[in-house]
Amino acid sequence: MNLAPPKAEELHPVKGLALGVAEAGVRKANRKDLLVMRFAEGTTVAGVFTQNRFCAAPVILCKEYLALARPVRALLVNTGNANAGTGDDGLARARQACAELAALLGCQSSQILPFSTGVIMEPLPAERIVAALPSALADCREDNWAKAAEAIMTTDTVPKARSQRLALGGRSVTVTGMAKGAGMIHPDMATLLGFVATDAAVSRAALQQMLAHAAARSFNRITVDGDTSTNDSFMLIATGAAGTETIDDARHPDYAALAEAVTEVAVWLAQAIIRDGEGATKFITVNVEGGKSEEECKSVAFAIAHSPLVKTAFFASDPNLGRLLCAIGYAGIPDLDVGRVQLHLGDVLVAKDGGRNPAYREEDGQRVMKQSEITVRVELARGSAQTTVWTCDLSHDYVSINADYRS
Amino acid sequence: MNLAPPKAEELHPVKGLALGVAEAGVRKANRKDLLVMRFAEGTTVAGVFTQNRFCAAPVILCKEYLALARPVRALLVNTGNANAGTGDDGLARARQACAELAALLGCQSSQILPFSTGVIMEPLPAERIVAALPSALADCREDNWAKAAEAIMTTDTVPKARSQRLALGGRSVTVTGMAKGAGMIHPDMATLLGFVATDAAVSRAALQQMLAHAAARSFNRITVDGDTSTNDSFMLIATGAAGTETIDDARHPDYAALAEAVTEVAVWLAQAIIRDGEGATKFITVNVEGGKSEEECKSVAFAIAHSPLVKTAFFASDPNLGRLLCAIGYAGIPDLDVGRVQLHLGDVLVAKDGGRNPAYREEDGQRVMKQSEITVRVELARGSAQTTVWTCDLSHDYVSINADYRS
Repeated sequence: MNLAPPKAEELHPVKGLALGVAEAGVRKANRKDLLVMRFAEGTTVAGVFTQNRFCAAPVILCKEYLALARPVRALLVNTGNANAGTGDDGLARARQACAELAALLGCQSSQILPFSTGVIMEPLPAERIVAALPSALADCREDNWAKAAEAIMTTDTVPKARSQRLALGGRSVTVTGMAKGAGMIHPDMATLLGFVATDAAVSRAALQQMLAHAAARSFNRITVDGDTSTNDSFMLIATGAAGTETIDDARHPDYAALAEAVTEVAVWLAQAIIRDGEGATKFITVNVEGGKSEEECKSVAFAIAHSPLVKTAFFASDPNLGRLLCAIGYAGIPDLDVGRVQLHLGDVLVAKDGGRNPAYREEDGQRVMKQSEITVRVELARGSAQTTVWTCDLSHDYVSINADYRS
Repeated sequence: MNLAPPKAEELHPVKGLALGVAEAGVRKANRKDLLVMRFAEGTTVAGVFTQNRFCAAPVILCKEYLALARPVRALLVNTGNANAGTGDDGLARARQACAELAALLGCQSSQILPFSTGVIMEPLPAERIVAALPSALADCREDNWAKAAEAIMTTDTVPKARSQRLALGGRSVTVTGMAKGAGMIHPDMATLLGFVATDAAVSRAALQQMLAHAAARSFNRITVDGDTSTNDSFMLIATGAAGTETIDDARHPDYAALAEAVTEVAVWLAQAIIRDGEGATKFITVNVEGGKSEEECKSVAFAIAHSPLVKTAFFASDPNLGRLLCAIGYAGIPDLDVGRVQLHLGDVLVAKDGGRNPAYREEDGQRVMKQSEITVRVELARGSAQTTVWTCDLSHDYVSINADYRS
């Protein structure tokens, strides 16, 4: 879909955070594939990670290092190789890369958090990463977000980055983030890699809570293909360099405003991933309302969002909307009364009373299906819970991209 | 994939069961889209049906009529329209078609079981079906299986039918079956429509048990796209016309042999559906062994079988086998020790000890990936349960077929 790359001047630097990129030649030559993010002292970092049991070596290391609760000094990100499905050897290579960067920065290995994305089950060329570290460090600048967002891309067609400013206690604070991901996108997590940073001061506990809030409303609400990646990581970083009062828990008067800004940036990034979904030609919002619980609303929303039959119908702009009823029917609500379900496509009431709305006309469905942004709304009429999920269609290009990914 | 249509002479008639087809013009003109199966007196019938809450009107009626436990005299099958997502009006139309056939046969409506397959959420043209009933009845013959298998096709490219003979108590008994389905294929059930019949004599309770056994090993072990249809029905019919002793429960000496023959026919039909899966170019068998329970083996097998990333890699003959580890990792076994998992592709040991087998060479994976029938074997090393699931790859043609289905 049409997605403009971010303009460098719209990405506000986050004080206390510098980014530098380099060409390590991890998988291909002449491509910026290495990113270092350096943090000022006093920075706090929180993370959420994939639930995949075959999680990548860097995910295992991130969790191990974060558990030590030492100040994080830098993140080290490579593309081209996921370092997943690589066993003990993969862990050793990730440790080595962290140790080398730690030596250059004069800190301990456990103060460096590693991230990898790319092909699974290939050995990480740690020596090429290590060789490129000085060059990435030399490139470190606070205004390098656009370059960094480009360096973390894999099958993404555009870099994804977003920035906001807000006032906290009379001071201007920045929230800037970037993410990469286009396929293997599914909760939880659904981002592959996402990094959002602020120069506000936030305790680690409050930061973790803010991150969970934002993740639940952004990266955990999207799906491209239903495949939960081995490497998904979403990090929230607070440098404190803006000089604001430390937000130490959710009751702090500044917490809500900052959480909202972080969530807005995360939602924008999550939606950008869908807009750039592999082969995507349409952006589809699925609203499910009137459920007994948010959980059952999510089941229905993801049943629709995952269905290859629904997704190919959207690709074809074909209002073959029985496929939506079918997906609602198998979403796993055993006592669903289908006679009460209502289905809207955009502003058109398609189905009610267990079947097609008598006033529904094919041309009304056709009109909505032709749009590039479509909202599906399902009313379950059995409670007051609701949820929203975002997805894209399934096109020939999805098959092409994934059949040819490694070649 | 290459799948030869059944030869009429290989489909042995089932004594006491006659099949007749007609052109009702349900959706398209000049196409045999109506099938009547008539049964001799004393015939018993068992059925299993979709779990989809938006199940079709004929599925609702089948359950209602079977619950009355009256002798079933005929099945009435149409293609071109699923009569699903059609509410009370759809139920009334299905009832009407059954009533008209009952009047022609001199029985009650509830002795006719209806089946529909085709587009969802369109009104069933019951009047056209009713008008074609005399023609279908006039066509009824015991040796019409090949013609019947053709009449129930929708996006299938070949009719699917299979026949076996066995000796029970010194008499020759026949088991013949047919099925249709190519997309919207997923347990439970995964067939769209399957009909298997024998001229052995079986009580209804024993027949239901035999059907459940066969379904669990056949139609509930396959997936094309993960969409559970609204209309799935799998019926087992025993006319008793071969004159064998009635099998009244599972301890009867003939039960096991007949159950095995029924299961073999059902497995053949289920595999034929995968071979004819929409856009399929490869037939993939997924064996998962060493699980704590069959349920967790199925979770892993279906995670692999559903993954669009795995399926596109098979389509491309690309041994991007990390995607298989990824699917195993998100299959939902929270305490899976990935360090003990082994992954075989055909005869090649691809992964062990949490990562790639050091002896694995890309060309070995490539060699297997190029085959049109591929076996994936996963050893979980945590128990003694196992399961097998069959699926196909995901190709450009799947997208084309489903983007253009209604046009």
